[in-house]
Amino acid sequence: MILEDERRSSARSTFGFKTYESPFTLRYGSDEMRQIWSQENSWIKARDVWIAVAGVQMEAGLVSRAEYQDLVDHRDEIDIETILRREMDKEDPRYTGHDIVAGISEFSDKAPLGGRILHKGLTSEDVLSNVEILLIHESLNIVEDRLKIALSGFAKRIEDHKDLVVVGFTHNQAAEPTTFGYRLARYAQDLVVDLESLRFLRGIVKGKGIKGAVGTSASFEKLLEGTEMTAEDHERKIMERLGIPAVTISGQTYPRKFTLMTVATLAFIGQSCHQFASDMKLLQASPFDEVAEPRRRGQVSSSAMAHKENPNNAENIKSLARGLIGKVVEAWINASEVTLERGLEDSAGKRSYLPEAFLAVDEILKRTDNIIRGLQVRETSIARNFRIFSPFMATETVLSHLSRGDVDRQEMHELLRGKVTLALDAVRNGDPNPLQQLLAEDEVISKYLDPEELEELFSSVRDHVGDAPERCERFLKNELYPAINGGNN
Amino acid sequence: MILEDERRSSARSTFGFKTYESPFTLRYGSDEMRQIWSQENSWIKARDVWIAVAGVQMEAGLVSRAEYQDLVDHRDEIDIETILRREMDKEDPRYTGHDIVAGISEFSDKAPLGGRILHKGLTSEDVLSNVEILLIHESLNIVEDRLKIALSGFAKRIEDHKDLVVVGFTHNQAAEPTTFGYRLARYAQDLVVDLESLRFLRGIVKGKGIKGAVGTSASFEKLLEGTEMTAEDHERKIMERLGIPAVTISGQTYPRKFTLMTVATLAFIGQSCHQFASDMKLLQASPFDEVAEPRRRGQVSSSAMAHKENPNNAENIKSLARGLIGKVVEAWINASEVTLERGLEDSAGKRSYLPEAFLAVDEILKRTDNIIRGLQVRETSIARNFRIFSPFMATETVLSHLSRGDVDRQEMHELLRGKVTLALDAVRNGDPNPLQQLLAEDEVISKYLDPEELEELFSSVRDHVGDAPERCERFLKNELYPAINGGNN
Amino acid sequence: MILEDERRSSARSTFGFKTYESPFTLRYGSDEMRQIWSQENSWIKARDVWIAVAGVQMEAGLVSRAEYQDLVDHRDEIDIETILRREMDKEDPRYTGHDIVAGISEFSDKAPLGGRILHKGLTSEDVLSNVEILLIHESLNIVEDRLKIALSGFAKRIEDHKDLVVVGFTHNQAAEPTTFGYRLARYAQDLVVDLESLRFLRGIVKGKGIKGAVGTSASFEKLLEGTEMTAEDHERKIMERLGIPAVTISGQTYPRKFTLMTVATLAFIGQSCHQFASDMKLLQASPFDEVAEPRRRGQVSSSAMAHKENPNNAENIKSLARGLIGKVVEAWINASEVTLERGLEDSAGKRSYLPEAFLAVDEILKRTDNIIRGLQVRETSIARNFRIFSPFMATETVLSHLSRGDVDRQEMHELLRGKVTLALDAVRNGDPNPLQQLLAEDEVISKYLDPEELEELFSSVRDHVGDAPERCERFLKNELYPAINGGNN
Amino acid sequence: MILEDERRSSARSTFGFKTYESPFTLRYGSDEMRQIWSQENSWIKARDVWIAVAGVQMEAGLVSRAEYQDLVDHRDEIDIETILRREMDKEDPRYTGHDIVAGISEFSDKAPLGGRILHKGLTSEDVLSNVEILLIHESLNIVEDRLKIALSGFAKRIEDHKDLVVVGFTHNQAAEPTTFGYRLARYAQDLVVDLESLRFLRGIVKGKGIKGAVGTSASFEKLLEGTEMTAEDHERKIMERLGIPAVTISGQTYPRKFTLMTVATLAFIGQSCHQFASDMKLLQASPFDEVAEPRRRGQVSSSAMAHKENPNNAENIKSLARGLIGKVVEAWINASEVTLERGLEDSAGKRSYLPEAFLAVDEILKRTDNIIRGLQVRETSIARNFRIFSPFMATETVLSHLSRGDVDRQEMHELLRGKVTLALDAVRNGDPNPLQQLLAEDEVISKYLDPEELEELFSSVRDHVGDAPERCERFLKNELYPAINGGNN
Repeated sequence: MILEDERRSSARSTFGFKTYESPFTLRYGSDEMRQIWSQENSWIKARDVWIAVAGVQMEAGLVSRAEYQDLVDHRDEIDIETILRREMDKEDPRYTGHDIVAGISEFSDKAPLGGRILHKGLTSEDVLSNVEILLIHESLNIVEDRLKIALSGFAKRIEDHKDLVVVGFTHNQAAEPTTFGYRLARYAQDLVVDLESLRFLRGIVKGKGIKGAVGTSASFEKLLEGTEMTAEDHERKIMERLGIPAVTISGQTYPRKFTLMTVATLAFIGQSCHQFASDMKLLQASPFDEVAEPRRRGQVSSSAMAHKENPNNAENIKSLARGLIGKVVEAWINASEVTLERGLEDSAGKRSYLPEAFLAVDEILKRTDNIIRGLQVRETSIARNFRIFSPFMATETVLSHLSRGDVDRQEMHELLRGKVTLALDAVRNGDPNPLQQLLAEDEVISKYLDPEELEELFSSVRDHVGDAPERCERFLKNELYPAINGGNN
Repeated sequence: MILEDERRSSARSTFGFKTYESPFTLRYGSDEMRQIWSQENSWIKARDVWIAVAGVQMEAGLVSRAEYQDLVDHRDEIDIETILRREMDKEDPRYTGHDIVAGISEFSDKAPLGGRILHKGLTSEDVLSNVEILLIHESLNIVEDRLKIALSGFAKRIEDHKDLVVVGFTHNQAAEPTTFGYRLARYAQDLVVDLESLRFLRGIVKGKGIKGAVGTSASFEKLLEGTEMTAEDHERKIMERLGIPAVTISGQTYPRKFTLMTVATLAFIGQSCHQFASDMKLLQASPFDEVAEPRRRGQVSSSAMAHKENPNNAENIKSLARGLIGKVVEAWINASEVTLERGLEDSAGKRSYLPEAFLAVDEILKRTDNIIRGLQVRETSIARNFRIFSPFMATETVLSHLSRGDVDRQEMHELLRGKVTLALDAVRNGDPNPLQQLLAEDEVISKYLDPEELEELFSSVRDHVGDAPERCERFLKNELYPAINGGNN
Repeated sequence: MILEDERRSSARSTFGFKTYESPFTLRYGSDEMRQIWSQENSWIKARDVWIAVAGVQMEAGLVSRAEYQDLVDHRDEIDIETILRREMDKEDPRYTGHDIVAGISEFSDKAPLGGRILHKGLTSEDVLSNVEILLIHESLNIVEDRLKIALSGFAKRIEDHKDLVVVGFTHNQAAEPTTFGYRLARYAQDLVVDLESLRFLRGIVKGKGIKGAVGTSASFEKLLEGTEMTAEDHERKIMERLGIPAVTISGQTYPRKFTLMTVATLAFIGQSCHQFASDMKLLQASPFDEVAEPRRRGQVSSSAMAHKENPNNAENIKSLARGLIGKVVEAWINASEVTLERGLEDSAGKRSYLPEAFLAVDEILKRTDNIIRGLQVRETSIARNFRIFSPFMATETVLSHLSRGDVDRQEMHELLRGKVTLALDAVRNGDPNPLQQLLAEDEVISKYLDPEELEELFSSVRDHVGDAPERCERFLKNELYPAINGGNN
Repeated sequence: MILEDERRSSARSTFGFKTYESPFTLRYGSDEMRQIWSQENSWIKARDVWIAVAGVQMEAGLVSRAEYQDLVDHRDEIDIETILRREMDKEDPRYTGHDIVAGISEFSDKAPLGGRILHKGLTSEDVLSNVEILLIHESLNIVEDRLKIALSGFAKRIEDHKDLVVVGFTHNQAAEPTTFGYRLARYAQDLVVDLESLRFLRGIVKGKGIKGAVGTSASFEKLLEGTEMTAEDHERKIMERLGIPAVTISGQTYPRKFTLMTVATLAFIGQSCHQFASDMKLLQASPFDEVAEPRRRGQVSSSAMAHKENPNNAENIKSLARGLIGKVVEAWINASEVTLERGLEDSAGKRSYLPEAFLAVDEILKRTDNIIRGLQVRETSIARNFRIFSPFMATETVLSHLSRGDVDRQEMHELLRGKVTLALDAVRNGDPNPLQQLLAEDEVISKYLDPEELEELFSSVRDHVGDAPERCERFLKNELYPAINGGNN
């Protein structure tokens, strides 16, 4: 039975406001990253593979210099609409129903001489698989650059704020003091791990090479019969021209594990930035108010409520990052369910999740960098919060001083808890934290600690940040700077 | 600190082959579904909300008929590029940095009189939240229609093949016989459940209503002071004009649980079709070869290997379906992490996962329908496979006949296993299954079963399909047909 | 080639502190739910299926009353260790390597008479599939009860706090006022949807019925030959005894879509509770401090820091809920990848994700109920926060009053923003919000608004909660109470 | 308000058949891996941390030799039930409600002298975080060993079958020939990447170190005042005793990115094995029948159907692997949503997903190894399938020979396609593939190719496996063997 084909009858008027356009076309990601994942770049890369193949086959004596040169000369004359039409538009007189066949046909129009030897011995995936790996590597370079830029932003702010004492929070409860720079170093340390992961990934992700329909190079052995070139040489020389190594073993395509690991590594970056953004949003909450995202001159959040400054970038980072874990799920299933020498189940999905994982990370890192460089650190609010909560942090030392006498530790603990409860009542009412005063006025406590000693204990809380500042310095010197100065990019 | 804004400096030359374009723009989904999720439709729907609001506020005496009519008259004069530029292009003299403010500004240009009262008392999400629910309902209607169409395709083929005996497979091992129609009824039964889920969902998913910045209707109480209309009436009348009910309680937006349930319900459909497609791909595997997808007249899979017929549609369905479960993950996180009266963390992600979940299901159902209607059922291959494997299915009955005599059941079982092993050797060698012959020739067995009895036992395997055909009929009559004839769509 | 079996050589000393024990054994979930998913309950349910089958086959004349009664009499004499040993311990003299065969063997020991007719005509999945659906329905009943209990807790607190004015927060920024009861109603509304989804699910999830190896009932047609009972009657009567309906069509098992939908519906509940818990954790953050989880008498969070009260329940709910979405992913893949009449790919995973999804929701709802009933609402802190942030909310009305005169609105807006900035400086410094005073002292503003009018505008912010209280009442009356009083449970 | 605590009132009779027991307790994973994740091992590791701390504090002069020695002497006297009871059973007279406090209390009972200085200066997470990293490293060692064992199994079979020609399948359609060893090398290449990832991971995953409540080491600076040891030395020396490095920067816990990356890396292994198992299941499908899993001597799949040999191990691997991607989702959310210096949201979930990810991979690799070592390669079936499908593979060469003459290539192509269709009819009917004969008999074709030439072309298909055998050797020599012989384990 023959059914009517449901393919689109025309590729014309495909784009624009009357059809669905992805936010990754309209809003998120850089133009640079979008260009990498454009139809045009992908087809130009396909031509680069064809040209590299023709060049090596010329070495082998199978292709003439004129044929090769014709391809080189017309590399940039490309008409994507024609290709798509020949692939998808069944009304087109030269309709093919096949992407690579359409691409061959269009390139052959432009370069008729070279067209005669185009795609010689290749299977479609000898082109497509290597193109995809090329695009991945181009994109990884951009991501690595953005990571390094963001990390250098972190470095500056860690340096700036390594001594700025802030209330540390565990379970969102005021805990011990830390420094703001030390807190920032925590996010940066995660991003340094991401940078290492990215570099590890780059070493893992290799091209399919030039191995034919089921990865055995059979067609190339036949093609090269009578020449002095082996199939192995043929592959090696082509991949050298393309600048990427090839796996030793393949099916029809490159191993789908690479797509999975790529998307997973991007999701690791997303995770670091999501955690950073979550904290930045929390610290921007009106009752915290310790930081603020950079704002454009004159930017108004609400015409009515002038005090509102929404954490737009933080929320946007979180949103885009969450998309990444969904994409990991998809990539995992696809890589786990390949059938024998190949299945096509990863194809439709990968057309969006791979580019969009890169575009999302691209945008995420851009915004992370934007936040970290422009972050307003509200020292007044930080000091207020420290005044409110630090007295509670002093109780530990107070108790240890009290316990040194002949007193019953348990009794003292209960006494202190009573005072803390009173102090909390005041804080809840918006009054200054009266704990130090309450202790000074207590007749039992004042027997063991005089007001000067109490003042010493309460004011020294500020110093209880351990070696946080030194660790910041050590981290920058030994880990962050070497990481951003290293790498093969 | 004021940073340079990183927003796109221009919305011009946004589309096309030199930038990233989603496969859901270029390839997957129907034009109809794409149109729903276009920028234009979304803005027209926003205008519909504004017009409904103005209409009701005219009833309340807050808006003049001329103002209202001006909005109505200019509803369709829209210039999306201007809106996007005023939202995102900071070089634009009327740049706003805010989507709804840009939309108001552009509509006011077209309808200056109505523009004076546009968006009166509203918060942005009084527009956007209801627009999104309208788009969801429009899309659900299309999905329901496609589901019903696909189910009617299944109905026909179940009817056609309800008596066609095939080898049943468990763990991919030939097991007992079933009928091809019965197998199809299994997929159809899942899709009927999906249709019920879709209808349940439609009853659940309600609009935000018209409740202002934090869902309390405070601004409308103030606005309507002195009129005879309450905020509750104001909301109810507007929602009646829009044709969707409103939740009783909301924050700034509609409950994000609805987005989650919508995407999950779409993923349920994706699951049914994925299972169907997996089986169809398996049955098309060369060594099975029991079915084939419909093919275009003259469609050639491989110029070299004329026997290849790739299961393109099945593989494509599986690929698109897997994207859906990734989107469920994203929607779940977003719905689980809303902060108080609202957060923006779902925004960036939802711009793609919601439309694309619909577009994916749209394409999946189109292709499912295409397969089921055009499926070639290869009765020759089915008969061949049945000849090869059905003799093994006869062993159970043979054993029970043998065991009726004075024989030792265990001994007979071992005897039979020996014969089965010999038969498997033949089958593996490509020879006809000799099991019946082997048993007939065995002197022990022939004592208990003569050749006619053996022939009877072996040939009756074909009848061992229980009540599969009757169940097909019952399912069609009691479940499938009522499901596709019911519903409020 | 025959390899040594790697199965566990002994089921003895399997449990305890020297081996891995799941937190769902040690910590999370109720004993009641754990009992449902125990080995013992599962095997007792299997016996219930066998007894129901024997009872119906007795009706058909295939089983004697004595045989049937023997099974009934020994239903509760069960020795799980023996069953597991016969399934898994290859040293056991009666090792079977098969769960159902082991279960038959052990039951037959206890009931030798009934054992003769045990499992007559059945395939293993005629038992296991129906057992699993029985366990699901038992568990759904518990979950429904817990949902209703939690909702009645919400009802009480919504009623209590429907008028308690609090600062509403969007993007964690102080926005307009709302009421605490209205905020709670938002979570409750989501849980009401979950309750509806649960009831919908219960109607969807049906047993496999009694249909044999590939769902065709072939073995039962043969078995019942010569009786007056059809295979359809046989199934119907057995399922009536078991109290669950059967699907019309099946493969070897019940449709895996049901497992997916079950886990997804549980994840919907998890999502509602996660959102609630996230907000409760945020409102417990020291700088908010508006609520506190119930605490045991004498419970101390930190011996040193008496002010700390960690949001343990909220954090625990979030943690358990996140596990649910991971389980949905797993269930989706399994349901999407069934092969033909059955595959076993869902088996190993389902042994944990199905029970643990129920146990997680069980614990989540218990803790949600614990929080909502015992929640301490800190009115002092709430009032403090309102004092701090509400003046900013007054600016909108102030501006509209100012704009009524002959003044330039833009100029006034800038004037107000200047004052707001000064007020923010004070707030950040921990001082009372001076905005009202700043406006009263400004000579331009005081021309248009005298101190009494300003006082009126600032103090009326408290009243700007719209119809939030009425909506609470309407929601309770029309939605929450009907939901918890309805249902078939 | 004080609520009744819902914690379990007793830890007694917690285990066994009357409660839920995880399949990872009962069935999956090795005893060795289960022991690592037992309560007992985890508490012994906690004691190891305490002992290491005491040892270093002895060096600093803060702890006496007798105190230290007391801890060392009683390290192995442990009573887990007491610990759990003191943590969770509020009826217990020494109930603490806190795991580490309970553990301190129980150890102090056993070692009263050492108990006096136990946990000196530490926060709970100085113990727990390092314990978890120790358990992860122990588990990674087992996984690495299993990976290497499985890879050596692959090596042997790749060697064995590197020349065994099989039909290659793309899209499940018979495509070009490959070799079975080359196919196996593809899975092995993925596992080699996994081994590299595992080693990379081991270098990344570091302990928290000894840094106190918010990671600043403040408590240790204070504790060590007056000694010659710095907080940095204190940490370094302790971690040296424990044998794991520490991160430079931390909050209260080790970075949750490490948990995410650990689970993700395990999911990468799961993906490789899932792909392998999927293919093995497919190749075991009755109509393929090219391989079979190893079976126990005398193992019977079905008493009735002696020919059935279910792919149990393959299906089990797939099932367990799918659980891993669900766990990655959970770990990602947890790592992305940490709040400031710590949140507890990862705690409840991590108690199961971390051990179970290891137990699942443990079982997956065991079964993968079991399959690969014991795999029956059915050369008879392989030869049959090759006879059936290889003639179609010859058409490509036939066409190129025909096209060399003065014939019209298009006409020849159509002629060939007609013959292929006839041949397919025969194949579908179970007859030998007659394609060669059909061509020999055709009068047009026989003009260009005589029977001997045709025979040559058809029989040479078997040789068209390119350099697959050489690539197998190269892969083993250059990649697989170096990988399993390398590593620091």
